[in-house]
Amino acid sequence: MEKKMEELRKRLREIYDLDSVIALLNWDQNTYMPEAAGDARGSQLAVIARIRHDRMVDPGLGRLLEELTPYEQELPYDADDAALIRVAKRHFVTESKVPADFVSCFYQHVSQTYAAWVEARKEDDFSKVEPYLEKTLEFSREYASFFPGHQHPADPLIDRSDYGMKAEEIRRLFAELRSRLVPLVEQVTSLPPTDRSCLTKFYPKEQQLAFGKKVIEKLGFDFKRGRQDLSPHPFMIRFADGDVRITTRVNEHDLSEALFSTIHETGHALYELGISSCYEGTPLHTGTSSGVHESQSRLWENIVGRSRTFWTYFYPRLQAEFKEQLAGVSLDEFYRAINHVKRSLIRTEADELTYNLHVIIRFDLELALLEGSLSVKDLPEAWRSRYQSDLGVAPQSDQNGVLQDIHWYADFIGGMFQGYTLGNILSAQFYQAALKAHPTIPEEMERGEFSTLRGWLTENIYQYGSKYTAAEIVKKATGTDLTIEPYLDYLTQKYTALN
Amino acid sequence: MEKKMEELRKRLREIYDLDSVIALLNWDQNTYMPEAAGDARGSQLAVIARIRHDRMVDPGLGRLLEELTPYEQELPYDADDAALIRVAKRHFVTESKVPADFVSCFYQHVSQTYAAWVEARKEDDFSKVEPYLEKTLEFSREYASFFPGHQHPADPLIDRSDYGMKAEEIRRLFAELRSRLVPLVEQVTSLPPTDRSCLTKFYPKEQQLAFGKKVIEKLGFDFKRGRQDLSPHPFMIRFADGDVRITTRVNEHDLSEALFSTIHETGHALYELGISSCYEGTPLHTGTSSGVHESQSRLWENIVGRSRTFWTYFYPRLQAEFKEQLAGVSLDEFYRAINHVKRSLIRTEADELTYNLHVIIRFDLELALLEGSLSVKDLPEAWRSRYQSDLGVAPQSDQNGVLQDIHWYADFIGGMFQGYTLGNILSAQFYQAALKAHPTIPEEMERGEFSTLRGWLTENIYQYGSKYTAAEIVKKATGTDLTIEPYLDYLTQKYTALN
Repeated sequence: MEKKMEELRKRLREIYDLDSVIALLNWDQNTYMPEAAGDARGSQLAVIARIRHDRMVDPGLGRLLEELTPYEQELPYDADDAALIRVAKRHFVTESKVPADFVSCFYQHVSQTYAAWVEARKEDDFSKVEPYLEKTLEFSREYASFFPGHQHPADPLIDRSDYGMKAEEIRRLFAELRSRLVPLVEQVTSLPPTDRSCLTKFYPKEQQLAFGKKVIEKLGFDFKRGRQDLSPHPFMIRFADGDVRITTRVNEHDLSEALFSTIHETGHALYELGISSCYEGTPLHTGTSSGVHESQSRLWENIVGRSRTFWTYFYPRLQAEFKEQLAGVSLDEFYRAINHVKRSLIRTEADELTYNLHVIIRFDLELALLEGSLSVKDLPEAWRSRYQSDLGVAPQSDQNGVLQDIHWYADFIGGMFQGYTLGNILSAQFYQAALKAHPTIPEEMERGEFSTLRGWLTENIYQYGSKYTAAEIVKKATGTDLTIEPYLDYLTQKYTALN
Repeated sequence: MEKKMEELRKRLREIYDLDSVIALLNWDQNTYMPEAAGDARGSQLAVIARIRHDRMVDPGLGRLLEELTPYEQELPYDADDAALIRVAKRHFVTESKVPADFVSCFYQHVSQTYAAWVEARKEDDFSKVEPYLEKTLEFSREYASFFPGHQHPADPLIDRSDYGMKAEEIRRLFAELRSRLVPLVEQVTSLPPTDRSCLTKFYPKEQQLAFGKKVIEKLGFDFKRGRQDLSPHPFMIRFADGDVRITTRVNEHDLSEALFSTIHETGHALYELGISSCYEGTPLHTGTSSGVHESQSRLWENIVGRSRTFWTYFYPRLQAEFKEQLAGVSLDEFYRAINHVKRSLIRTEADELTYNLHVIIRFDLELALLEGSLSVKDLPEAWRSRYQSDLGVAPQSDQNGVLQDIHWYADFIGGMFQGYTLGNILSAQFYQAALKAHPTIPEEMERGEFSTLRGWLTENIYQYGSKYTAAEIVKKATGTDLTIEPYLDYLTQKYTALN
């Protein structure tokens, strides 16, 4: 068995390394690659992706996993070897069900769709991308058809990033959340808006970057095991246990953009950096789901990074760095500015409170499209009507509506958005559990200390990587299943106190 | 035949892409990779290198090339298809002769040797690395043994970077060059040394980088198809027709370091950028030899970049950038400073005139080791005695002698050094031919125009990539075989006028 496990590890290491290479090709494309290199990069990515796919669905790997199944079943569920075989088998089975030709056709389609979307958006003409989106919807249903027996066609798509979550369950959860968020948003936005003009002065790029680095070093980002670069859209990417990178972008006329995107991506990075090094080279060496990953970016960005305790420590330092810009701005004014709430049209620019309403709209529209109760041609209108009812604002143009971001034009429809709001919900549930175990966390934060919080998260979430599913992690870490109460309590308390 | 050519192109494209991926992994390792990522990067590189090797020596590729041989023989020698088959066959045959196991054993040995060298150098103790170097010598001889019928054991090693050149021929050439360089160096260094203190003032990094970029844009480096980054050792690397990158390092207390390394690497880059785009994805899409490549870095760095005509244009601009540092320094003083000649111990710090003596010493010692007329244990002494006789200086310690740089401790012994001096020789031979075709080149340089020179080089050298061998290119471009006369004329004229 030892020999078989060794062979398994060897095969998985190769796949892991190929994934890292793909990650590097993507990282470089988004950070430093010269503009003329696009086609060549596409070709390099395709070569490695094909080799990676061949390795992943190699029948030899399937046989090996089958031979290892009795060993897995002998072991306790919590044994690392058992988890490794279990997770590797899940990946093998999933990837083997999707024909390679389907994948390559779909990605060809996606690159055409992307081009059509760029055009459609520029000209504010949804009809230009409509036929492509129809086709994307067909591809998405076809993907689901490779997994017969699903309850909802979105389920296999959701499994890609939030394994084990079901569309119906998320729909119920989101409906409940929505019914309680809409009145809270109404209440908060009916008051006079907070003043955020202190954030929109001129903040020089290099100073912003330097301050951001100081902040995330305090949070525990280890620059020996990672780095930060600039990219048009911020992201986190992991190549190895000792190589986790984040990116940010800087707006010199809005201090909050780089600052909070940096803390957000650091949350993702702390998760990856906290996974047990023993899992390096295996599929366990990555965050377990989109929802749990997003819970960490949101916990650090919002619950920590937009809290008064956090800024009790950092605000004097920020003021010292930006003397002129923040002269005469009190901690309280700054705190209100970074927690400004506003009904808006663009998801990625939304504040902590309204953000989930954007996500829930998307999620519901995705399900309706997949179910066939909404057709692609009626999508822009459905979009406008939901924005009107949930957020009280409706886009005048599709540019600010259904065409606003790349997501539906760069991947399947379905399975993409739930993670954002699951993450918000979980961020509060995890933080509550951490606070229960260590009530001194807020006092420590006021002193610029984060190791107790990070320690609890590492102990209860990070270290396990993908050993446990999201549902298992939530239960282990918090004692209960996923629940929206801590999140609603957090929002209600925070925004009631603020207004 | 069309179909077979298509299959050949497809196979070669994959190998090309894998080479590009290896290049990116190396580039990142030398520029941005966090320090903790070393082992993982080694693993990633090994995975891709193994896949690349499998593709390269695939018997299917061998059969295909055999089937295409009659087609190749029907075509004129100058036809692109003929060149493609010819060059691909040469690579296939060469790589197939070297067993994969030998390669992996050797690279394991090299990584141990490297570690031993770091230690030996730190402690100035050659004996620590001596047994490793013995083994490297054995590996080098074994490599040669895979190519029976060679005249000299160095020949197969030389073929790796300067295909077709023979050790005996280079030895004769270098002996002649040496016999004429030694007195010239003696003559120049017997005069009072030029003053280079204007270069060693404080020159801030960002300003140096900005000025360097302006210079190389004028020379024709296209930042849409490339970029410049920092690394501990400057290099040029090519990922694709639209992606050629250079690196530099900055010494704030010596203006010449970044400036001339930037122009040097730009010379390499202009070569790669000038290759016909039609060759992308094939083994023709790279410079033809180490010697021809180095001829371009040296031509742009020395013949152009250290000429008075070049600085007639750039010096007023440099002075405007560094007003304080260069106030009162005339063009003539600056020109003398950048052409300062000094007998020294360290090859990489040597000036244009003495540099070749360092290289020739290395080359001769390599041949003696491979022939068995010199043993590894006697190497430090042989080094000292040659430095004394050729350069009139001898290292007090091996740190400044045989341990000074990584080369012998990171690859085979043999085939590594000849390219540097062949490049110097060729730089003058090519420049002379360009000047004969376009006598206005110097006047244009005085106006900051380089397109005629770059055009001639592109037309006669760059565009062909590896279609022709170095010997063929030299003959085509200059009308004669390689000859040292233009180089000696260039040096003699320049340094006689300077003193």
